[in-house]
Amino acid sequence: MKKFMNDAEQFLSESLAGFVAVHADVVALGEGGLYVSRAAPNKAKVALISGGGSGHEPLHAGFVGTGMLDAACPGQVFTSPTPDQMLAAANAVGGAPGVLFIVKNYSGDCMNFEMAAELYEGKIATVLVNDDVAVEDSTWTTGRRGVAGTMIVEKIVGAAAEAGKSLDELKALGDRVVAATRSMGVALTSCTVPAAGKPTFTLGEDEMEMGVGIHGEPGRRRVKLTSAKTIAGEMVEAIVADIAKSGVTGGPIILLVNGFGGTPAGELYLMAEMARTDLAARGFTLARMIVGNYITSLDMAGCSITITAVDDALLALWDAPVKTAGLVWG
Amino acid sequence: MKKFMNDAEQFLSESLAGFVAVHADVVALGEGGLYVSRAAPNKAKVALISGGGSGHEPLHAGFVGTGMLDAACPGQVFTSPTPDQMLAAANAVGGAPGVLFIVKNYSGDCMNFEMAAELYEGKIATVLVNDDVAVEDSTWTTGRRGVAGTMIVEKIVGAAAEAGKSLDELKALGDRVVAATRSMGVALTSCTVPAAGKPTFTLGEDEMEMGVGIHGEPGRRRVKLTSAKTIAGEMVEAIVADIAKSGVTGGPIILLVNGFGGTPAGELYLMAEMARTDLAARGFTLARMIVGNYITSLDMAGCSITITAVDDALLALWDAPVKTAGLVWG
Repeated sequence: MKKFMNDAEQFLSESLAGFVAVHADVVALGEGGLYVSRAAPNKAKVALISGGGSGHEPLHAGFVGTGMLDAACPGQVFTSPTPDQMLAAANAVGGAPGVLFIVKNYSGDCMNFEMAAELYEGKIATVLVNDDVAVEDSTWTTGRRGVAGTMIVEKIVGAAAEAGKSLDELKALGDRVVAATRSMGVALTSCTVPAAGKPTFTLGEDEMEMGVGIHGEPGRRRVKLTSAKTIAGEMVEAIVADIAKSGVTGGPIILLVNGFGGTPAGELYLMAEMARTDLAARGFTLARMIVGNYITSLDMAGCSITITAVDDALLALWDAPVKTAGLVWG
Repeated sequence: MKKFMNDAEQFLSESLAGFVAVHADVVALGEGGLYVSRAAPNKAKVALISGGGSGHEPLHAGFVGTGMLDAACPGQVFTSPTPDQMLAAANAVGGAPGVLFIVKNYSGDCMNFEMAAELYEGKIATVLVNDDVAVEDSTWTTGRRGVAGTMIVEKIVGAAAEAGKSLDELKALGDRVVAATRSMGVALTSCTVPAAGKPTFTLGEDEMEMGVGIHGEPGRRRVKLTSAKTIAGEMVEAIVADIAKSGVTGGPIILLVNGFGGTPAGELYLMAEMARTDLAARGFTLARMIVGNYITSLDMAGCSITITAVDDALLALWDAPVKTAGLVWG
């Protein structure tokens, strides 16, 4: 294993210490390191809290800040945070308007966020993200996995929360964005979890994992590496076929081409070019596009494609100002 | 070789097509694909033009936009752009106030930018960046290499250009920032150039290249992988020893911890934590810190550490608003 680290047990805490030092204008580390919150919390609005296993940076702590999350709870690498983390975060940033949990659909995350919601004494609701079309009922999940679409949910709901929407409105909006979002990923290499010290899975020199999960979970099938155009086409086909079941067969979309951590920007933009031309030919309008490492899988080489069907209202929320470590505009 | 690509010859043009499509609000592709310019050029100010071999994204095209570059000339991967590219860019974005070339110190880049400067019929000057303390006179360079500090030069000089400074003032400012900037890199793995199809160099499973260049050029020595603290300490020591020769032995700095493309954010923040605590202990003040993949080497795992000694005037220029694909704030 080749990583910049001192020892596996300190990996998360040392990395988080660097993160909050570098972004001290935006975030602060909560008591006991249980959560990352905004440097300047605002209890007059609904508090958005997310979290999950670490190793997907900038998700989630990198999306804490004005216009997006109020706090994020980082678990150990690829391990759900514990209910006391979410509860501490909710108590720290939640006010009278309530708390909204945004949870990726993994069994551990669901269970722990649910427990925290039961323990929390204020108003609370949960949005469950399950955008991965690759597989149902993996080793990590019941139902579909929550993957890169989570960023789009957090951005859009975050903008609405900043605008003062109620907990009920934000819960409905989050569910609506989830319903309009689909993703699929592909891995060219495995990732290596620091505490494991060896790759999570192995791929031949000419193989890729089509439909891979963000923890290196198996996808639909292991196939021979082929052209970027063919790979993007297969991912787009799976996404488009799935969202068609919800009645979406064209129209304006946000396209996210997300790197898993080990793939350079030049390849991601090339994949974006393949995906956007394919989607345009299928009758979709590329209203917004975003490319980069946003929901990573440690050092895995690979990428995912996400689309969210949008209308003008969702686009206005997407375009609203955001200032976080991982996403800045407006 | 595992890359998202169709064929090596089309890699750059397809990747650039995606880049300008995704960032159409900020950049446009120049005629014949020779350069990337701002979507809305401003000939009333000095035009800043940079460029170099591709494979270092977001450098340079990702730094074109308000507050930074006016145009960038992308060569093939790790290959200097040709003089006609710089000349076309200068003719497209240069006005009466003149053109400033910002050039990383590699023999090919120096020669080609110099030729373009001779052919250009307007006012022109050049700032040469040579911040790498690792080696003098490598296979690619005479003198020190230009590496990650280039981003800091482009940002600070870009802000001054936006504020209407003259060509002479910008040339002097650029030289001053170069003189105040030092970098050093380390590689955990090689990169693979698409057209080559195999790694540029090989490292044992327990080895790293200390002082590596951004094209995978050899560094100071090949050593056993050790702790992040020791690695960061050795890089900081080399940087601090070098800048001390210029009389800088403490005071306010900008710290850039730059990923080479294959190293995930969690590790970069951990390295930032090691570097900042080390620098603070040596009497430096961390006035600003920035962490991410800014000057990459394709898919190389590794990172570099850069410091720039600053005063309030340089910090104000660093903090000035910037809107590019790769750097956004203010």
